[in-house]
Amino acid sequence: MARSAYEKYVPMLEWGRRYDKNTFQNDLVAAVIVTIMLVPQSLAYALLAGLPPEAGIYASIVPIILYSIFGTSRSLAVGPVAVVSLMTAAAIGNIAESGTMGYATAALSLAFLSGAMLLILGLFRLGWIANFLSHPVIAGFITASGVLIAASQLGHVLGISISGHSLPHMIESLFHNLGNLNLITLLIGVAAISFLFWVRKGLKPLLLSKGVPPKLADVLTKAGPVAAVVVTTGIVALFGLDNYGVKIVGTVPQSLPPFTLPNLSPSLLGQLFVPALLISIIGFVESISVAQTLAAKKRQRIDPDQELIGLGAANLGAAFTGGYPVTGGFARSVVNFDAGAETPAAGAFTAVGLAIAALALTPLLYFLPKATLAATIIVAVLSLVDFSILKKSWGYSKQDFSAVAATILLTWGFGVETGVSAGVGLSVLLFLFKTSRPHIAEVGLMEGTEHFRNIKRHPVLTNERLVMIRVDESLYFANARYMEDYIYDRVQPDCGIDHVVLMMSAVNAIDFSALESLEAINSRLTDMGVTLHMAEVKGPVMDRLQTGHFLEEMSGQVFLSQYDALRSLAPEMPLAKSV
Amino acid sequence: MARSAYEKYVPMLEWGRRYDKNTFQNDLVAAVIVTIMLVPQSLAYALLAGLPPEAGIYASIVPIILYSIFGTSRSLAVGPVAVVSLMTAAAIGNIAESGTMGYATAALSLAFLSGAMLLILGLFRLGWIANFLSHPVIAGFITASGVLIAASQLGHVLGISISGHSLPHMIESLFHNLGNLNLITLLIGVAAISFLFWVRKGLKPLLLSKGVPPKLADVLTKAGPVAAVVVTTGIVALFGLDNYGVKIVGTVPQSLPPFTLPNLSPSLLGQLFVPALLISIIGFVESISVAQTLAAKKRQRIDPDQELIGLGAANLGAAFTGGYPVTGGFARSVVNFDAGAETPAAGAFTAVGLAIAALALTPLLYFLPKATLAATIIVAVLSLVDFSILKKSWGYSKQDFSAVAATILLTWGFGVETGVSAGVGLSVLLFLFKTSRPHIAEVGLMEGTEHFRNIKRHPVLTNERLVMIRVDESLYFANARYMEDYIYDRVQPDCGIDHVVLMMSAVNAIDFSALESLEAINSRLTDMGVTLHMAEVKGPVMDRLQTGHFLEEMSGQVFLSQYDALRSLAPEMPLAKSV
Repeated sequence: MARSAYEKYVPMLEWGRRYDKNTFQNDLVAAVIVTIMLVPQSLAYALLAGLPPEAGIYASIVPIILYSIFGTSRSLAVGPVAVVSLMTAAAIGNIAESGTMGYATAALSLAFLSGAMLLILGLFRLGWIANFLSHPVIAGFITASGVLIAASQLGHVLGISISGHSLPHMIESLFHNLGNLNLITLLIGVAAISFLFWVRKGLKPLLLSKGVPPKLADVLTKAGPVAAVVVTTGIVALFGLDNYGVKIVGTVPQSLPPFTLPNLSPSLLGQLFVPALLISIIGFVESISVAQTLAAKKRQRIDPDQELIGLGAANLGAAFTGGYPVTGGFARSVVNFDAGAETPAAGAFTAVGLAIAALALTPLLYFLPKATLAATIIVAVLSLVDFSILKKSWGYSKQDFSAVAATILLTWGFGVETGVSAGVGLSVLLFLFKTSRPHIAEVGLMEGTEHFRNIKRHPVLTNERLVMIRVDESLYFANARYMEDYIYDRVQPDCGIDHVVLMMSAVNAIDFSALESLEAINSRLTDMGVTLHMAEVKGPVMDRLQTGHFLEEMSGQVFLSQYDALRSLAPEMPLAKSV
Repeated sequence: MARSAYEKYVPMLEWGRRYDKNTFQNDLVAAVIVTIMLVPQSLAYALLAGLPPEAGIYASIVPIILYSIFGTSRSLAVGPVAVVSLMTAAAIGNIAESGTMGYATAALSLAFLSGAMLLILGLFRLGWIANFLSHPVIAGFITASGVLIAASQLGHVLGISISGHSLPHMIESLFHNLGNLNLITLLIGVAAISFLFWVRKGLKPLLLSKGVPPKLADVLTKAGPVAAVVVTTGIVALFGLDNYGVKIVGTVPQSLPPFTLPNLSPSLLGQLFVPALLISIIGFVESISVAQTLAAKKRQRIDPDQELIGLGAANLGAAFTGGYPVTGGFARSVVNFDAGAETPAAGAFTAVGLAIAALALTPLLYFLPKATLAATIIVAVLSLVDFSILKKSWGYSKQDFSAVAATILLTWGFGVETGVSAGVGLSVLLFLFKTSRPHIAEVGLMEGTEHFRNIKRHPVLTNERLVMIRVDESLYFANARYMEDYIYDRVQPDCGIDHVVLMMSAVNAIDFSALESLEAINSRLTDMGVTLHMAEVKGPVMDRLQTGHFLEEMSGQVFLSQYDALRSLAPEMPLAKSV
C-alpha cells in the first residue's frame, strides 16, 4: 500500500484516521500529567535561557501542536529543554544583555534559524549528518552541560548573580559575588532542592508502601515540582519575603502566545548561524534518540528525516509565538509515554492545558521565588550527569575516551559551543588518523580450510616466493603512501619473491590517489621481476577499477578468492608452517 | 650496521665519508649547469613573490647548503619555486605593501615560521600529515596555481600593473589598466616568450640534427633563459629603453647574503600562521614527490621525516639571510639529476656559483627588463598546467573529480589559500560521507568453494532462515546507525529468520558508538528470537571486542570463517541458489 505524499509529510493524516474514544481517553490522561509537570519546568528553562518566564510557556504551546502534526513519534514531547536552553543563553549572551528586548528578539531569530535549518535538512533528507556526533561525544557533552547548568543555577539558589558560560568564569563570578549572599533565598533554595531530591528517591516507595496505587503514586511523584512551587510561592507571599531580597518571578503577562516576528537582519543571522546549527543538531540528536528509544518499546519506527521536518516546524512555530529553540525532551517524553499517550494528539492536549495555564495561572506565579525554579533545574539536570561514559570508553578504546574527555573539559572550560565542536572535530580527526595508518597483515592458509589469516596470529601455511598481503582499510589518499611504503619495505629487490597477492577483502573503496599508488607499486614490482595480483576484490571496487586501465596494466591477475590465487600461483610449491 | 643518531639526523656524515674525486667532478658539472639556470629563475621568482630580485638569489644560497647537510635526497635542488612564491605573495600581500621594508621583513618571518613548522613536524615524525593532500587535489592545485601565476605576470609583459590574488581580481585589474599598455615592453615580452617556447620545443632537435652532442645540446637548451636575459638586457641598455617606460630591475646590491632577523612579533606570526602552514605542507609535498621520483630511478630511499628536517633547516636559513620560503623545485632538481649530480654536494657548489653571481654579476642586471623575467616565469609555469587530471578523475570517480574541480575553481576564484584548504576539506568530507553510508551486501556460498560473495552479483547458495550480511566498512560513529537501520529493515519480526551472521572480513575497527549499536542490534534480535553471530572477525577487532562484555552478551557465537558459520548453523538446511 503506497502512502500518498501528503501522508508522508503529514503523519497526522495517518494516525488521525484511526483515532477513537479509547485512544482519546488515554491521550487525555497523559496530557494532564505532562501539563502538571511542564508548567514549572517551562518557567525554569526560560530562566536558564535568560528569558522571561512566559517565553518558556509560549515555547511549549504552538511547537507541541506543530510537532504533533508533522512528527513521527507517538510519544515525543517537544518544548524547552535544559541543554538547548543553556546553548540558547550562550548563543544570545554574546549579542545582547539578558532581560532586554534585543535578547528576546534574538531568541526568536535563533528559533527561526534553527527551525529553517532543521526543515531544510529534513526536506533534503540530510538527517544522517547527526551521525557524525558519536555516542560518547554526546554522552560527554550532556554530562558536561548538566554540570554547567547546575553551576549556572547556583546563583539563584544563593541569591547572587553568576555570569559566564564556562565553568572557570562561573566559579570566578561565584566567589566574586559570594558576599551578597541572601540567606533567606539560600534557605528556600536548599529546602526546595532537598524536597525535590526526596520526592525523586523517597516519595514513590513511601506512597506504594502506604497502599497508594502505583499509577497515582507516579502522578504524585511527578507533581513534586508543582508542590515545591505552590509551597514556596505561598511562603514568600505570606511573609513578603520579596522585601527581604528574595528574587521573585514577578508579573507574567496573562495571555495566549503572542504573534511575534523574529529579527531577520543578515548580520544577526550571520552571528547566530553557527550556534543555530549546533543547537539544531544537538536538539535533533537528543530528540531522535528519545523518540527511537520509546518507539522501539512499542515496535514503532521513527523516520529521522520526517523528524527533522517535525522539529523544524516546531521551532518555526516557536519563532513566531514568543518562544525560543525547542526540541524533544527526555524527561517529559518518558512521562508522556509512561502515562499512556498513544498518539501525538496527547501533545496537542498538553498544549491546550498549557494555554489555560498561561491564561489563568500566571497571576498566581507573581511571588514564585526564582530559587525554587533553580532548584527544579538543578535536580532535573543532575540526573543527566553520568561520568560512567569516561570509564566505559577508557576500558574499550583510548581513542573514544580522548574524544569524551576533550568534549567534557572543553565544554567546561570554554562553553557548550566550543565543547561540542571540539568533540566532533576530534572524533573525526582520530578516525582519519587511524585510517591513515591501517593495519596490514601478511596472511597464510589455515590448514584444512580455504581460509586465510594473519601469519603472526595463527599457524598458517605460507610459501616464501609468494607474499600475500591483506590491507585492512579502504585505500584512499591518506593511506595510499603508507601501503606503498609497506610493500616496498617487504618486497626488496632480489629477495626471492615471485608473486605478491593483495587480498582485498577489507578494501571497500579505492580512490584516485590510491589507484595511482597501485600503478606505482605495479610498475616498481614489475621492474624487480615480481608479479602483482589481487584476490577477493569486492564488486563495487571491481566496478571502479574496470573504468580505468589499471587492470590491463597490472602484471598479474585478479582472483575471485585468495584460495584460487594460492592454488593457481603455487600449485607445486611446498607450503611451510608459520610460527 | 646501526647508524648513529648523528648520521640519522645529518645524512651528510654518511655520504661525505665516501666522497671521492670522481663524485666531485660529476657534482661540479651539475652545479655549473644548475647555476646557469638558477640565476634568471631566482630573480624571476623573487619578482613573482613581490620581493626585490636579490631576495631570490639569497634564498638560493644558504638554504641549498643547509639542505645538502640535513636532507636525504641526492638530487633535490632547494630554492624559490613558482607556487610557493605565489603563496608568499598572497600571504604577505594582505599584511604589507610590496616594495616596502615591512613586506621584506614579513617574508623573512614567513620563512622562519615555515622553517620552524617543518622542523617540528620532522622531529615529531609527523610527515604523514602531508598524506591528507590527495594526489588529485595537489594536481588540481598546481594546475590552477600555474594559471594564476601566468596571469599575474601578464602585467609585466604588458608594462602595466596587475593586482589581486584571484583570477577575477586580476582580470578586472588587467582591463582597468589596459590603457597604460607599453608597446615596447609588450614587444620585448612577446619576443622573450616566443624565444623561450622555441628553445623548449625546437632548439634541442635542431642542435641534435646539426650534430651537437646530446649533453651539450641539453646545456644549451637550459641556458635559453640566460640568453633571453643577456640579449634583452643588452637591447634595453643600448637604446636606453628604460627612458621609454620599459620597467627594469635596476640596482641590485652587490653582496653576499646579508644576516637578517625576521620580525617575530606575536601578532605578525599569528597572521602568518595559517599561510605558513599551507606553504610548509604544499612545499613539502612538492619537494618530497620530486625527491621520491628521482630517488626511485636510482633505487635510493627518501626518509620523509628527515626531509622535513632538511627543508625546515633550509627555510630557517632563508629567514636569517634575506630570503623567503623555499622548497625543492621540480625543474631544477630534474636538471640537477640529469646533469649527473651524485650527492648533495652539487647543491653546495651551486650555492658557491650563485654567491659569485651575487657578488660579481648583479651590476650587469641593471638594465634587465622585468618583462623578460615575467616571460621566463610564464613559460616555466605553463608546463605545470595540466588539465588532464580533470578528465582522468572524472573517468575514475566523480568524488575525486569534484575535489579537483573545487580546488581549481576556488584557487582561481579566491586565491591559493582558500583553494588548497577547500580541496583538502572537501576530499576529507567526501571520504567521511562515503564511509558513513557503507556498501552492505548479503552474501551466500559460491558452489564448490568455501568462498562467500554478494547474492546480487554471483550465483550463490543461501538459506532463507540464515541471513549472512557483510558490512563493507569499519564500524564507527558515522555509520553505526546506518548499519542498525539496514539490519532492522532486513530482519523484521516473524519473517522466519533464525540466525543472522555478520561477516566481518571488511570491518577493520569497531568504535564505542558502533559497539553500542551492536549491543542494540543483539538485544533487538534476541527479543525477536533471532540469534546474532559473527564470522571472520580480524585479530585487532577481536582484541578490542574482548575488552568489553559484548561477546558474552551476544546471543550467538564468533566463527573463525564464514564457512564454519554456515556449516555449524545450517548443517542440514537445504541451500537454494540465488539469482
